[in-house]
Amino acid sequence: MIAVKAEIVSIGTELLLGQIVDTNAAYISRKLAEIGVDVFHRVTVGDNPDRVVAAINEALERADVVITTGGLGPTEDDPTREAVAKALGVPLVVSERARRRAESRLARAGHEIGLESAVRQAMVPEGAQVIDNDRGTACGFIASTDGKVVISMPGVPGEMEGMMESTVLPYLQGRMGDASSVIVWKVLKICGRGEASVEEEVRDLLHGRSNPTVAPLVSLGEVALRIAAKARSPQEAEAMIAPVEAEIRARLGDDVYGTGDDELQDAVVRLLTAKGLRCAVAESVTGGLIAHKLTQVPGSSAVFGLGVTSYSNEAKREFLGVPAEALETHGAVSREVAIAMAKGALLKGHADVAVSTTGIAGPSGGTAGKPVGLVFVGIASRHGIACARLNLGGTRHEIKERAARRALELLRRHVLSKC
Amino acid sequence: MIAVKAEIVSIGTELLLGQIVDTNAAYISRKLAEIGVDVFHRVTVGDNPDRVVAAINEALERADVVITTGGLGPTEDDPTREAVAKALGVPLVVSERARRRAESRLARAGHEIGLESAVRQAMVPEGAQVIDNDRGTACGFIASTDGKVVISMPGVPGEMEGMMESTVLPYLQGRMGDASSVIVWKVLKICGRGEASVEEEVRDLLHGRSNPTVAPLVSLGEVALRIAAKARSPQEAEAMIAPVEAEIRARLGDDVYGTGDDELQDAVVRLLTAKGLRCAVAESVTGGLIAHKLTQVPGSSAVFGLGVTSYSNEAKREFLGVPAEALETHGAVSREVAIAMAKGALLKGHADVAVSTTGIAGPSGGTAGKPVGLVFVGIASRHGIACARLNLGGTRHEIKERAARRALELLRRHVLSKC
Repeated sequence: MIAVKAEIVSIGTELLLGQIVDTNAAYISRKLAEIGVDVFHRVTVGDNPDRVVAAINEALERADVVITTGGLGPTEDDPTREAVAKALGVPLVVSERARRRAESRLARAGHEIGLESAVRQAMVPEGAQVIDNDRGTACGFIASTDGKVVISMPGVPGEMEGMMESTVLPYLQGRMGDASSVIVWKVLKICGRGEASVEEEVRDLLHGRSNPTVAPLVSLGEVALRIAAKARSPQEAEAMIAPVEAEIRARLGDDVYGTGDDELQDAVVRLLTAKGLRCAVAESVTGGLIAHKLTQVPGSSAVFGLGVTSYSNEAKREFLGVPAEALETHGAVSREVAIAMAKGALLKGHADVAVSTTGIAGPSGGTAGKPVGLVFVGIASRHGIACARLNLGGTRHEIKERAARRALELLRRHVLSKC
Repeated sequence: MIAVKAEIVSIGTELLLGQIVDTNAAYISRKLAEIGVDVFHRVTVGDNPDRVVAAINEALERADVVITTGGLGPTEDDPTREAVAKALGVPLVVSERARRRAESRLARAGHEIGLESAVRQAMVPEGAQVIDNDRGTACGFIASTDGKVVISMPGVPGEMEGMMESTVLPYLQGRMGDASSVIVWKVLKICGRGEASVEEEVRDLLHGRSNPTVAPLVSLGEVALRIAAKARSPQEAEAMIAPVEAEIRARLGDDVYGTGDDELQDAVVRLLTAKGLRCAVAESVTGGLIAHKLTQVPGSSAVFGLGVTSYSNEAKREFLGVPAEALETHGAVSREVAIAMAKGALLKGHADVAVSTTGIAGPSGGTAGKPVGLVFVGIASRHGIACARLNLGGTRHEIKERAARRALELLRRHVLSKC
């Protein structure tokens, strides 16, 4: 096994000014961990040539492989090509192949200007391997010296991701040899429980384990558990993970709704598909977000036909048949209206199950009796109706997001237990 | 003026494994730039005590102020308190005030366990100023020695943001004195043009300027221009920005839809509000995303009453009155159906203007004649109808996102020019 230690250097003044969130670093980190490359350090610097050179040199002292993103564009403000060449002590040369690719790409796109920029974007440190860019004009490269490697890719996420998959990951795997160790992890996604409740249930698994490790991951309104195993092969690691996963599933039951990149909507669409059921959605406070989430899932058209965003009372009455009386007596934000909305969506959408939301997302519109964050979720199917009253915190966006998540959770529970 | 140079150290193994995107670093960077603190370097390390100490020490060599996030939790895996104390050469002590606050918070939340963790989360380097946490149990701190400062905050975004606003930014502003220089920037948001077209129009402003600078910012389907000025006061900086902004607006006209954090939907809601108009939305390929975007805007309920996500042909016919013949003859993804959907939404939503989308988001469902990414956007108002045929690239999510943006753009143009 040849262990490889990598560092990531993100280059861009926009990053340091906080104008852009560095999703590239997270993506690269995840991909490297998947193939067992250790990353102990990430650095972000601006488009300043000296600081880029210094960052690359410092990273090369600690790591075997330095991966940079950004700063490969056509302008003089893009410092990465020069900086890497300087750090490695070699001149820059033009890759004729990359230049021709960039030119033909610019020509296809109908750009008249830019042949000079095609040349700039085709420059690489002498002796470097060119990484083709199938999604843009700037080529990347793998440059090495004295057993150390610098890999440079553009900052545009799609272009960088294409290069990682096509060239960088296979290159690194080859470098590690086939006897290297790998980290494999599995993330179990959990709904319907807070962090504290999850930790209480699996406390003994979280502590005193070194391989596999179990760790909680918490983000907005969502808890997950990551099981990570380090072994000589993916198969060995997976075999180490399996019993731990089985134990967690035994303790948490249906609260484990999926794995990996699964979102709640993936679980809902999978469940409805498996049962051959169709759902409909009637949204007020979530304003289309539930429909948006469901339709993010490929194949959702087979289980989802109609969503109504009835933001006005008029739309609630006319489209969903919510009785004017219910709106007048109880107000639009009420149990009665939530249930009537769900029933209306069930009927109008010719669906097997329907979910609705009504509430106050803020920042204004709250009262003492009905504060910002008050949300009712309604569920209707031929097996019955249900309604949950939620008091959600956060900004307008967070309240919408949390309400949509809870609505999908309740929809899933209803289908699991009743349909 | 006392210039302050800061570095950000993000601490967390989840960050290095790519499980979490570091939005905190972007937030802190943005806030520091706003008050004129220079950030030339950001570092990310895992929960390894030695590497955290090394990262803090290295950052202290380059910068006056080191700001850390993460690693302040109650477990032994949370290394930041110890690491900062070690880097500064002082012992850790318990802040009684922070301990009492944490205990009473835990008690209020009904946690029985956790008094020990309250103590751990109340420890600070000796002599440090405690930063109260109004949104969680872990206190932050400002620790200084020999003119260098380490500021540590939790990794939970809401808790960190609360501490930045309440304590850290005022502290830094005080440290800089009131004669310090500030960076002020203004971002102009642009729609309806690609990056190349924008750059061509303002090329002379992008180059050869040092103060104010003009720089393009590009993210998914969106171009913006940032004008940044460095001056002794915000007023002076704003006065430097104003003529450059006027020049850009003169060249780009209505393509500049907003400033700062404005999204296209903010501009649309503002425009409809100003004109006293109501809009309705009929979505197929965007699946609720346009409604979701519009309802992200506070006050949108005054201009948006009805959105229909008609994912099935049945819903297109029954809810929007799309003629069965149009669906059969031209197919659901066609100019005719897009226009019929918009007309239906206009009528059913009692609206002044309506926008619709129909298309193929993929990954499957495309044909040679109607490939994945083909989208029709329809517009209807009493001033006429319009339809745009788009060929969008990207993943399912990107196609939805781009289609929704283009739909909002076309809605805005129609209202600007016709309504």
